[in-house]
Amino acid sequence: MDEVLKSYMAYRTKINAYNYIDYLVSWDSETEAPKECFKERSLYLGVLSEERYKIQVSDEFNAIVDELSKRNDLDADLAYEVSKMKEDIEKVKKIPMDEYVAYQVLLAESQNIWAQAKEADDFDMFAPTLEKIIEFNKKLCKYWETDELKGYDVLLNEYEKNMTTKEYDVFFNCLKEKLVPFVKIVSSKKLEYSNALKGKFDIDKQKEFVKYLMDVLCFDKNRGLVKESVHPFTSGYGTNDVRFTVHYYEDLLISSIFSAIHELGHSIYEQQGNPKYNDTFLSGGASMAMHESQSRFFENIIGRSKEFWSIHYNKLKDIFKEELVDVSLDDFYLHINEVALQFIRTEADELTYPLHIMLRYDLEKMMIDGDLKVNELPDKWNELTKQYLGLDVPNYSLGILQDVHWSGGSIGYFPTYALGSAYASQIFAHMQKDFDVLNNLETTQKINEWLKEKIHIYSSSMESKDIFENAVGRFDPNYYIDYLIEKYSKVYNI
Amino acid sequence: MDEVLKSYMAYRTKINAYNYIDYLVSWDSETEAPKECFKERSLYLGVLSEERYKIQVSDEFNAIVDELSKRNDLDADLAYEVSKMKEDIEKVKKIPMDEYVAYQVLLAESQNIWAQAKEADDFDMFAPTLEKIIEFNKKLCKYWETDELKGYDVLLNEYEKNMTTKEYDVFFNCLKEKLVPFVKIVSSKKLEYSNALKGKFDIDKQKEFVKYLMDVLCFDKNRGLVKESVHPFTSGYGTNDVRFTVHYYEDLLISSIFSAIHELGHSIYEQQGNPKYNDTFLSGGASMAMHESQSRFFENIIGRSKEFWSIHYNKLKDIFKEELVDVSLDDFYLHINEVALQFIRTEADELTYPLHIMLRYDLEKMMIDGDLKVNELPDKWNELTKQYLGLDVPNYSLGILQDVHWSGGSIGYFPTYALGSAYASQIFAHMQKDFDVLNNLETTQKINEWLKEKIHIYSSSMESKDIFENAVGRFDPNYYIDYLIEKYSKVYNI
Repeated sequence: MDEVLKSYMAYRTKINAYNYIDYLVSWDSETEAPKECFKERSLYLGVLSEERYKIQVSDEFNAIVDELSKRNDLDADLAYEVSKMKEDIEKVKKIPMDEYVAYQVLLAESQNIWAQAKEADDFDMFAPTLEKIIEFNKKLCKYWETDELKGYDVLLNEYEKNMTTKEYDVFFNCLKEKLVPFVKIVSSKKLEYSNALKGKFDIDKQKEFVKYLMDVLCFDKNRGLVKESVHPFTSGYGTNDVRFTVHYYEDLLISSIFSAIHELGHSIYEQQGNPKYNDTFLSGGASMAMHESQSRFFENIIGRSKEFWSIHYNKLKDIFKEELVDVSLDDFYLHINEVALQFIRTEADELTYPLHIMLRYDLEKMMIDGDLKVNELPDKWNELTKQYLGLDVPNYSLGILQDVHWSGGSIGYFPTYALGSAYASQIFAHMQKDFDVLNNLETTQKINEWLKEKIHIYSSSMESKDIFENAVGRFDPNYYIDYLIEKYSKVYNI
Repeated sequence: MDEVLKSYMAYRTKINAYNYIDYLVSWDSETEAPKECFKERSLYLGVLSEERYKIQVSDEFNAIVDELSKRNDLDADLAYEVSKMKEDIEKVKKIPMDEYVAYQVLLAESQNIWAQAKEADDFDMFAPTLEKIIEFNKKLCKYWETDELKGYDVLLNEYEKNMTTKEYDVFFNCLKEKLVPFVKIVSSKKLEYSNALKGKFDIDKQKEFVKYLMDVLCFDKNRGLVKESVHPFTSGYGTNDVRFTVHYYEDLLISSIFSAIHELGHSIYEQQGNPKYNDTFLSGGASMAMHESQSRFFENIIGRSKEFWSIHYNKLKDIFKEELVDVSLDDFYLHINEVALQFIRTEADELTYPLHIMLRYDLEKMMIDGDLKVNELPDKWNELTKQYLGLDVPNYSLGILQDVHWSGGSIGYFPTYALGSAYASQIFAHMQKDFDVLNNLETTQKINEWLKEKIHIYSSSMESKDIFENAVGRFDPNYYIDYLIEKYSKVYNI
């Protein structure tokens, strides 16, 4: 290997080392760190992120990346990786240092301000901070704009390459046209089942069932682990260290079950990546939407299917003998697929979930590309909630202040959630062509293998769009709409 | 603040950041990391430790430390800190880089080799590695020798400043003379109690009692946490992040109890340090022996006292109603203080424990200063075991291969364990002068306050010896011997 390549590899490992530390410290912060430790912790994380930043923008490393990006003797993976790194460096350098630092300082406090505003149900407390965040994001759009990408498209492209308002408009208009009327029909009906899930569900027993689900979904415990945290999440570094969390509520049995299946979807994606990409910049999932497609595929399409529970409900009944004695498989199936219009996105059912996202997409577009002012946001939020969900928002906490994302600087992220769900339906339709998916659910091994071969094995060595199209063709939102309407027509006898 | 000081502070925070990461990653490795993650982890830890090393020996930082070490306008803490750092840098620089790297490579494998040799009960498997470790330590003695310190004294001084063979010889000779004959008398007698602890002890219940102990010893849960690991340990960074572990055995109730009290002793020491030393180089305990004095004070002097269990045994009986129904307080007290000669140091009782240390001290002295060859070690080990404990060692695993320390490069560490126990007795004697220690055990608050004021609050801002002497006078091993003989004469009716 020549000297330039050797230097590049050494830099790559060094940058990965800092990223790895970030991953591990965040994991600790989210799961067990004692609350008084954050003073020193923030200080040290600041120092280390500055070190990493210096390396990434150092003249020496930039010269190496430049030189490699001009060479044509690199293999495809390395060429792609170098081009991504070059793009990253250029982007970072386009932000004036003082603005970048000021924004980091703002973000260090903004989530806390948001949390307090939400707690107090007071939008005015958060508005000035949100205004600054939007301002900075608008500047980002300017710094990063290209001939093809301007305004909100710049931000959308950050979270999902090749997805701009043009594509999202088609997608969301399709939802508006076909899903909103269908939701109106469904929500006028009521599910009839004999016995609902109620009472207390011992948390140790819930944990036992989560362990069972880990085996059903073929999670490799030698290369990962499960723990608890307030908000469930998955994080991983390479294929050998993949961790997820669950939150348990004594009176909400299905919360832990479906958040576990959801996070297991993310985890299987990470564990089934190609190990040859460990310690490169091409490990991990290809994009946010692709990641979400995997989690929602398992959570909704597999996890909320009658076929899945025909096999696994017995185990659940075994564990909760007394609690579930009167709850039949049919009862359970209807319960986990009940549609209930509600204000909070994270509590929404599979059918109405995308409408919550559509609302946020509309607002973000108006915030960044239009002239919607921050003080006009709450009214607009409420107006769209009425339009899409038919609900009257009673306060800020159940409306504009419900999500953490904007306070963390994430504008353009929400649409990937809906896109992920839509991807999942298209993947499902194609998987069905290869084998009878819902009749292979003792474990998900066959499904995992299919996903590995078609998607997971590419890690992030190609653009998400290319991996997706190679696997299941061009994105078509009708798979999603058809899936939802077909499924919920059956559930609701429509 | 002038520029040099500012730069020094910035470097200090940076070095602390790397140390902090080391602390946190080790914690993860010991408690929950999935076993396949170590390939990438070792790589990244190597990179980060190289970064830290480069900073510490960088010309710029060394020039700053040099300049500060010549100034006389620094406050006492800073002057002491700078002098320690200067000493550290000089020591590091005295080791040729290639030897240092080769040794790190050796150590990266040596624990594994030792573990395999122990498993196979085959000393020859470990001997070549041990020989190299000893060779390197002998070189260290040469590199670091001074007019006052030569040979083994150099190593001893690394683990406990101001303690050399001169002081340790006095200490261990005292043990040999007075303790060895006493142990012979005790071990000829048998304790009479009606009902022994036996059967199974549910691990969740053991955990409940450990939580109770955390409250009794006033552990601050906002600044630390407890978890499980194979070998119990405590680690902390500053006063706001202090963590310890316990290992639970279903059939050994007292193992978790006393290892928890032991680790809580370490933890209280860390938590009660002076927070002004956080993010300096003066946080944490003053020395290994001082740390061990705190853990053993709580474990043995408090935790194995009749008075402690007069108050807290009811709680234990409450938790283990059926298991302890026939075990009286007296039975329990005798059980936890029973002397049983055995081969394994970590399982030894309070009375015979120091004899195990004495044996290792003798051997290390002969290894480094004498001409004892590696292949002669096992016989010498067995000979001394017979002499001090009266036992015939049946194999390597129960003899020379039992401890991990040498395989980790730690030669000169063992003596601090016995010294810590001896310190604890002297501390106890002086605490007694100030208040009736054993009649204040509802919680250990009063004890903690005393220790904080006399010892903990100094963190590592002074030499251990100075803190100790200011608190309880010059070290005198007779406090220890007297304490042991008095206690065990009572327990055994001698």
